[in-house]
Amino acid sequence: MPGDGFGQAFRVTTFGESHGPALGAIVEGCPPGLPLAEADLQIDLDRRRPGTGRHVSQRREADRVRIVSGVYEGRTTGTAIGLLVANEDPRSSDYRALAEVFRPGHADYTTFMKYGRRDPRGGGRASARETVMRVAAGAIARRLLETLAGVRIAGWLAELGPWRHEGPPPERTPENAFFVPDEAACPLLDAHLEEVRRARDSVGARVGVCARGVPAGWGDPVFDKLDALVAHALMSIGAVKAVEIGDGAAVVRQRGSEHRDPLTPAGFASNHAGGILGGISSGQDIVAHLAFKPTSSIPQEIATLDVRGAATTVAVCGRHDPCVGVRGVPVAEAMLALVLADAFLRQRAQCAGIAPPLGPFAPP
Amino acid sequence: MPGDGFGQAFRVTTFGESHGPALGAIVEGCPPGLPLAEADLQIDLDRRRPGTGRHVSQRREADRVRIVSGVYEGRTTGTAIGLLVANEDPRSSDYRALAEVFRPGHADYTTFMKYGRRDPRGGGRASARETVMRVAAGAIARRLLETLAGVRIAGWLAELGPWRHEGPPPERTPENAFFVPDEAACPLLDAHLEEVRRARDSVGARVGVCARGVPAGWGDPVFDKLDALVAHALMSIGAVKAVEIGDGAAVVRQRGSEHRDPLTPAGFASNHAGGILGGISSGQDIVAHLAFKPTSSIPQEIATLDVRGAATTVAVCGRHDPCVGVRGVPVAEAMLALVLADAFLRQRAQCAGIAPPLGPFAPP
Amino acid sequence: MPGDGFGQAFRVTTFGESHGPALGAIVEGCPPGLPLAEADLQIDLDRRRPGTGRHVSQRREADRVRIVSGVYEGRTTGTAIGLLVANEDPRSSDYRALAEVFRPGHADYTTFMKYGRRDPRGGGRASARETVMRVAAGAIARRLLETLAGVRIAGWLAELGPWRHEGPPPERTPENAFFVPDEAACPLLDAHLEEVRRARDSVGARVGVCARGVPAGWGDPVFDKLDALVAHALMSIGAVKAVEIGDGAAVVRQRGSEHRDPLTPAGFASNHAGGILGGISSGQDIVAHLAFKPTSSIPQEIATLDVRGAATTVAVCGRHDPCVGVRGVPVAEAMLALVLADAFLRQRAQCAGIAPPLGPFAPP
Amino acid sequence: MPGDGFGQAFRVTTFGESHGPALGAIVEGCPPGLPLAEADLQIDLDRRRPGTGRHVSQRREADRVRIVSGVYEGRTTGTAIGLLVANEDPRSSDYRALAEVFRPGHADYTTFMKYGRRDPRGGGRASARETVMRVAAGAIARRLLETLAGVRIAGWLAELGPWRHEGPPPERTPENAFFVPDEAACPLLDAHLEEVRRARDSVGARVGVCARGVPAGWGDPVFDKLDALVAHALMSIGAVKAVEIGDGAAVVRQRGSEHRDPLTPAGFASNHAGGILGGISSGQDIVAHLAFKPTSSIPQEIATLDVRGAATTVAVCGRHDPCVGVRGVPVAEAMLALVLADAFLRQRAQCAGIAPPLGPFAPP
Repeated sequence: MPGDGFGQAFRVTTFGESHGPALGAIVEGCPPGLPLAEADLQIDLDRRRPGTGRHVSQRREADRVRIVSGVYEGRTTGTAIGLLVANEDPRSSDYRALAEVFRPGHADYTTFMKYGRRDPRGGGRASARETVMRVAAGAIARRLLETLAGVRIAGWLAELGPWRHEGPPPERTPENAFFVPDEAACPLLDAHLEEVRRARDSVGARVGVCARGVPAGWGDPVFDKLDALVAHALMSIGAVKAVEIGDGAAVVRQRGSEHRDPLTPAGFASNHAGGILGGISSGQDIVAHLAFKPTSSIPQEIATLDVRGAATTVAVCGRHDPCVGVRGVPVAEAMLALVLADAFLRQRAQCAGIAPPLGPFAPP
Repeated sequence: MPGDGFGQAFRVTTFGESHGPALGAIVEGCPPGLPLAEADLQIDLDRRRPGTGRHVSQRREADRVRIVSGVYEGRTTGTAIGLLVANEDPRSSDYRALAEVFRPGHADYTTFMKYGRRDPRGGGRASARETVMRVAAGAIARRLLETLAGVRIAGWLAELGPWRHEGPPPERTPENAFFVPDEAACPLLDAHLEEVRRARDSVGARVGVCARGVPAGWGDPVFDKLDALVAHALMSIGAVKAVEIGDGAAVVRQRGSEHRDPLTPAGFASNHAGGILGGISSGQDIVAHLAFKPTSSIPQEIATLDVRGAATTVAVCGRHDPCVGVRGVPVAEAMLALVLADAFLRQRAQCAGIAPPLGPFAPP
Repeated sequence: MPGDGFGQAFRVTTFGESHGPALGAIVEGCPPGLPLAEADLQIDLDRRRPGTGRHVSQRREADRVRIVSGVYEGRTTGTAIGLLVANEDPRSSDYRALAEVFRPGHADYTTFMKYGRRDPRGGGRASARETVMRVAAGAIARRLLETLAGVRIAGWLAELGPWRHEGPPPERTPENAFFVPDEAACPLLDAHLEEVRRARDSVGARVGVCARGVPAGWGDPVFDKLDALVAHALMSIGAVKAVEIGDGAAVVRQRGSEHRDPLTPAGFASNHAGGILGGISSGQDIVAHLAFKPTSSIPQEIATLDVRGAATTVAVCGRHDPCVGVRGVPVAEAMLALVLADAFLRQRAQCAGIAPPLGPFAPP
Repeated sequence: MPGDGFGQAFRVTTFGESHGPALGAIVEGCPPGLPLAEADLQIDLDRRRPGTGRHVSQRREADRVRIVSGVYEGRTTGTAIGLLVANEDPRSSDYRALAEVFRPGHADYTTFMKYGRRDPRGGGRASARETVMRVAAGAIARRLLETLAGVRIAGWLAELGPWRHEGPPPERTPENAFFVPDEAACPLLDAHLEEVRRARDSVGARVGVCARGVPAGWGDPVFDKLDALVAHALMSIGAVKAVEIGDGAAVVRQRGSEHRDPLTPAGFASNHAGGILGGISSGQDIVAHLAFKPTSSIPQEIATLDVRGAATTVAVCGRHDPCVGVRGVPVAEAMLALVLADAFLRQRAQCAGIAPPLGPFAPP
């Protein structure tokens, strides 16, 4: 019932605060025999890492992951996989000044009201640092999906400031500092974030994720629709305020004649649905978008309360991203991987012996 | 692991297909002693019912709900509540012609590929009729929230065709056929849907839901953030393609200085967050929006496949809403109620003895 | 979190009280395509039914089960299976006298203290009638196990009064009124129960259950050991006070040299373990025993309290079994079937693609 | 769905193998504000530790536990508690010889058949070392129960070889090497185990656990009866083959007039039920017994198979307890604490506002 875990057949449970000694995760349900090394996880962790770009938080963390159980002689054993990452550069003193006030837009006030107390160092459990373990566990899910199901996941930055990605999802995650499909946009984005930072402000972003190779049939028809699980997973990332599947919010202004995707012997003729119909994957690309809010950690003063309820003001200095959405790309990929790994194993549980009555579509 | 249930401390599990003899639900975890009568559920069921408006499906169903367990002498006993609604007007013959083809935009193809077979009558389990039990169970959740926590939930139509609701969430669900806050808009919407129907087409819609009176502290900081559970719940409603919390997708184009809500002794000065910070309720109104796609059941022909994979076409005649979003309003309210009833009980489990360190805000 | 459901991949949730209009269940996760008819369930329900023997409760119930969803044209569709059984002969007036007192040995007092109220008619939710739905759902699990995995389950009466079954588990559930492997024991048991009844008393019983054909590999190594799930399932049957696996409580007085079962190319040389090692099935017969307490519903007076806490006495007349353990046999079989169906699907989720490295044992 | 976790409202998930670098656990749902230090956990860990008695495994492990999250300034924060214990003395070489054969009575064969592979070092995940994390998490549950609910848990050795505890459960866990209520029995037990060891054999044991101070009302009436969860928890401890509640297996030979416990204004007149009626605690002491099998790790040769299925023999030398049941006492206490902490929080979720209609019994 507590919410530190995600998934049912493939399940990750995490612990760890921003300024504690370590972050950790337990990954349960991973099929045995999967080749898995720490380096497989490190790739994704390095992409998420703070301190790797000009515009991301300047906290220095190596984020070296250790696999402490569940892998023997380079392959998963099928038993619980334990993961650990040490916190090396917490600088808790940065936060001493903030222990007595609630930073607006953060979880400070709500955490305090929920539990009657809180660990104020770096946001405690509510820190973006919590996503380290999502990415580490997601990397295992990704491996599983690639190896056993031929599923590949890509994320990208879809909108930031004046720039917006037009065109289809990229084949793989773009390898540039902004994860933008068109590398030529990088200088523009760089200049924009510099301007935002100079304005002592922050900015939101839109991120896209896509899974290719998911066969028709994953997901469930009622409460655990595949899109509902994707929404749960993506909305659980800090700072996300909207999740859209396929055409998303634009469907409000569509007609049925426009939205429904025709079926042909060569496959679907379009993908307005985003690869999910009635909660079950259709065999098309699964496409989702997330909206990241602008971080509230900016050096402008704002009215707030202190922990005794008295009016005061606060300005959040320190090491902060002007756009948390950029680093959100690998986190969104990880969450999509966790949902799909779980859906894959759940489908095996119920339908392992069922041959799909129709073969894959003929190429057009 | 299967997905016919929702919630953890307050949990509903449902069964039933469009053309079977009955729909049913089991509601577990309801606190004992709650006054509850079938009439309490019927109010919400009647609002969801087909055949009550000009523009909704013309299937005639009384949707009379029976409480068959868990209530004794007018109050809940604390044990499982069993709910039943008979299907009275299935007209399965309407669907005989559709048994051999996949209706694009529906779950026909994906259900067939998942299970290797399907009940083709009225969409089977994937029918919108499945939402009857969401509404019935949601009505219990609503009662619980009103009685034990002072929480009230309202839904409304926020956008349809040329019309869009501007202004704050209404105090309660508007009592008109379109659930629009401004009743004067009804003729406009009526005319628009008539035009859509004449064009043998359908149209999407945007729906809003709001919960008032939720105290600060409900929800969880990591995977089961309150907004993540809201997203799960709302995205699990058939035809929903996007879920937004607070300012939603608009945050992409906001600055941090604009988005973060200041705290004052009289309360938050704004509510861009939609009442949830770091996954935990802030004591403000919880506000979410959902995007309903236009139904794919329209009488225009479209390319598709038959169950043997051969190309064909289909046009879906019969009794169908030109805008399923309208009837989605009570369903969205029900799902929000289910999430909050669960969050309320989960908060009691962990923090029953914790006094909130700050009182409710002073009125301004 | 509430406890009206059991199982994870194959899950049953039930509702219903002794004197309500109906009992019901929802079975989720059943693989699609399984041939299933109401008659398949009725066989097991008829064996559990009160009023079929001289020494069982004389309540007259046909216990006709209806499958109201999840089956189409004689096969499971893969969606939730809804089950209903009407209560036809409640005779609530029998219980009016008992509404004000707590029957010792029953759940009256604990239910009242837990919920602050209770439905006193026939024990409400705590009635043995609740097991109807265990048996109905268990019959589906049994079908699944037989059809997809070749697993067969048998139960038997192992001890009652002066009689005790010696020798191995019977091949199938004995078809006599006492479920005893040696039919010749029936007159002895009959006479014993008649004597118990004349003494206005009741008596305990020991029941055995065995599953044959379970392959090596089902179960889990830590908290969800297969034997732990069997213990959970069997101890959840009303009136059960002990669960034993394999040699059970006798292991206390065994030596390691005696208990451990040697492995040979023809199979295990003995089965002290009861078919489970380290929480995982070994391929041997899975054998468990349960101890049923003597029912507390006897016409002898006993000291008790009334609902206001005052001392009084009570004698429970009415229609009651002198030995509830006899009717417990089909219930125990059903619970074992539920555990194994779940374990089977869970094993497919994680290890669907893993070929067992060693073939089945050569016959000796 | 995987089984590395236990509990719902209060939940522990563990990882770690006998010979990996560390064992760990995540404890979720712990109420905030509970005073908690590593020393609180260490007390119970030290009682479970190998190498502290003459007759327990001679592996040298300090079992120093670290709390790496969820505690701030000496109190729980309400967020996930991370626990770590390093493995310091694995001596994997001891096990090299055993990598190719299955030790009868161990999980070697079943693990291999389940996953198609295994970590052979010290039994991997199936090692008794896995119980370290049960004890660490159980110590938190225990603290919670003592502090918030006044519940105290005691375990004891109830039977070993020629010796058997007669009389009521001890008030607290006996502080001697055998956890026997009567310290005078220690020399006898010592001599018995010495004799068993000289016979190169091992012996079973019976362990008792008791919880005092549990109020009436914890537990659930159907599948999650409190006794069913106790059975699940205790049977999930390695080597346990039977679980009994109250009079346990002896109820088979009891009469109803003898078993049912009379209620009086001063309390129950006896406790045959073991403190649970209808799955719900009665306010009496909760009493359970477990049967531990004799360990299969003895130096006598036994027929077995190698990993290719060929006949061979094995004798298990190395550091092993002649009676694992002794060290099972703190593990059984921990599991009972985990069940009760969960039941306590679950009761708060559903019934937080319900005043028990009758006060505690007047003292006799």
